[in-house]
Amino acid sequence: MQIAAPYLMFLGDVPDALAAKTAHGIVDWRPEWCLGQLRLPGCKADLGIPDLTIPEAAERGAKTMVVGVVNAGGVLPEHWIPVIVAAIEAGLDVATGLHVRLKDTPAIREAAERHGRQLFDVRHTDQRFATGKGIKRPGLRLLTVGTDCSVGKKYTVLALEREMRKRGFDADFRATGQTGVFISGRGVAIDAVVADFISGAVEWLSPAAAPTHWDLIEGQGSLFHPSFAGVSLGLLHGAQPDAFVVCHEPTRTRMRGVEHPLPTIKEVIDLTIRCGRLTNPAIQPVGIAVNTQALGEDEARGYLDKLAREHGLPATDPVRFGVGSIVDRLAAQFPHSAPSTGND
Amino acid sequence: MQIAAPYLMFLGDVPDALAAKTAHGIVDWRPEWCLGQLRLPGCKADLGIPDLTIPEAAERGAKTMVVGVVNAGGVLPEHWIPVIVAAIEAGLDVATGLHVRLKDTPAIREAAERHGRQLFDVRHTDQRFATGKGIKRPGLRLLTVGTDCSVGKKYTVLALEREMRKRGFDADFRATGQTGVFISGRGVAIDAVVADFISGAVEWLSPAAAPTHWDLIEGQGSLFHPSFAGVSLGLLHGAQPDAFVVCHEPTRTRMRGVEHPLPTIKEVIDLTIRCGRLTNPAIQPVGIAVNTQALGEDEARGYLDKLAREHGLPATDPVRFGVGSIVDRLAAQFPHSAPSTGND
Repeated sequence: MQIAAPYLMFLGDVPDALAAKTAHGIVDWRPEWCLGQLRLPGCKADLGIPDLTIPEAAERGAKTMVVGVVNAGGVLPEHWIPVIVAAIEAGLDVATGLHVRLKDTPAIREAAERHGRQLFDVRHTDQRFATGKGIKRPGLRLLTVGTDCSVGKKYTVLALEREMRKRGFDADFRATGQTGVFISGRGVAIDAVVADFISGAVEWLSPAAAPTHWDLIEGQGSLFHPSFAGVSLGLLHGAQPDAFVVCHEPTRTRMRGVEHPLPTIKEVIDLTIRCGRLTNPAIQPVGIAVNTQALGEDEARGYLDKLAREHGLPATDPVRFGVGSIVDRLAAQFPHSAPSTGND
Repeated sequence: MQIAAPYLMFLGDVPDALAAKTAHGIVDWRPEWCLGQLRLPGCKADLGIPDLTIPEAAERGAKTMVVGVVNAGGVLPEHWIPVIVAAIEAGLDVATGLHVRLKDTPAIREAAERHGRQLFDVRHTDQRFATGKGIKRPGLRLLTVGTDCSVGKKYTVLALEREMRKRGFDADFRATGQTGVFISGRGVAIDAVVADFISGAVEWLSPAAAPTHWDLIEGQGSLFHPSFAGVSLGLLHGAQPDAFVVCHEPTRTRMRGVEHPLPTIKEVIDLTIRCGRLTNPAIQPVGIAVNTQALGEDEARGYLDKLAREHGLPATDPVRFGVGSIVDRLAAQFPHSAPSTGND
């Protein structure tokens, strides 16, 4: 899917900022794409961007209305439907990360057909993929992997894109989750793909590229998560990464949603290399990204220093300390991809 | 899904026996469920069971018409539609492993609604599963794994069911592929499940059971297959097997559909244990099942003896030499599950 920017961000009347987490992520990473927000009476979320009506947004060039919120109970609120229809009538495409599909609502489907607009249900995919072939493709690839779900894999890869582009690397974020797809305008929610096509979908997502080009691929789940490891393995095989970064949250004691303890960083590195070699024998770790939010600054620095020594890898908190040290390592390990005028 | 037996086997007018491979598999393993076959003029497949008309089949108690053939070009032949409708009108459910869905053909969907019959599209699943929880469930489980796809994982597990039941074990085949689902009457085509729910679907398929009960779970793909390893890993985690059997085809040089060489049996054992421990720390190999069709009998025996010594496991060709040696091993390793009157 290719979602056209710029966006009008629709927040509906969600009860808090958390319900608009996806929308916040989009504004954080692509502020230039977010022309304004559309909120209904009672909305308790605020993206801090201009409030626009649909005609105002259309006039300013908005191409897509993004429904970047979680809907309660998995249903589309009745009173959102006329707003979505109005956006379509004003010439906008509509993209959502809702559990329900836009096209399952007849009024919306018919409006889109009548006006020739596209509906994107990012959480679902009807796209057909080939099965993965596992053949090495030209270009360089980095994947974030994790000791668990929700440990900063998307943030890390977006921070790497920002830093690498700043230094003149040729690098693109590749989205595998719904928020990422809105941020990239393209991608696939890999956990929504039919199981047979996980690695094939990633091969589609990150096709052959120039030898010095980096695809920075958003990881999902963990090879050690009993619910989602299959997704993580198919993603690893399809991504065939040259480099990977391990993401971690040090205060977490149980994996998200289950009773299992977290694996160690070393276990994640070892199993990622062992399995990753199947499609890229040269796979190597290039850094550790830690969410140290729960630690004081000194404690965080001490912890990261210890990790760096233990694993012989740059270890950083991307939010607190940036990802410069990981990009330094990439430049050193893959010198042909580093811009000749690069600096840090 | 729960498909009601007995079956009327519909073969259409397929051009050869290979197109009816699924139907042959069902007749091989569940002859008592297959009342007869229905063939259209020009059909070149023959299951060796009585030819029945739809009224004859209905009269003899058929509950489901099984379309156990591969359709050319992924479309439902126009002239099959009235036959399927007639079966529905005669009171039969209809189940297929076709790429196209029965319910996408209006005449079939409407007939099923009108007569209150069920349509099963085994290759697809609309069933909703929970995500896997990875919690250890009571009961014993065996999974077949492989050095590749199509190396006898289904055959081995069905042969084990037959042999174990003969000896008085409490053992049930659990199907994860379309032919298996017809043979079991229940199951899920695991490669058709949305990626997020692979392990959860297997947890549904093989629920908590009596401590001496064996679920014999059909494996899929290989942890070393670059197209399908994600499916295999989710299946391993959801199955949480106590025991596994490695299936292998010794003359194959490349994995099915890709350029990769086959892993060794030792690599498969090691990675299966390493990953399988996540949801069952006690996982252990109990045998090696080899398709020795391409070898002479002496050569086959020599090869199996060598494997058995090398790995300290019973090694057999289930078709040629049966699976008694593997069941012996199970009885020895899991004595509480072996019937007290058991013999071999």
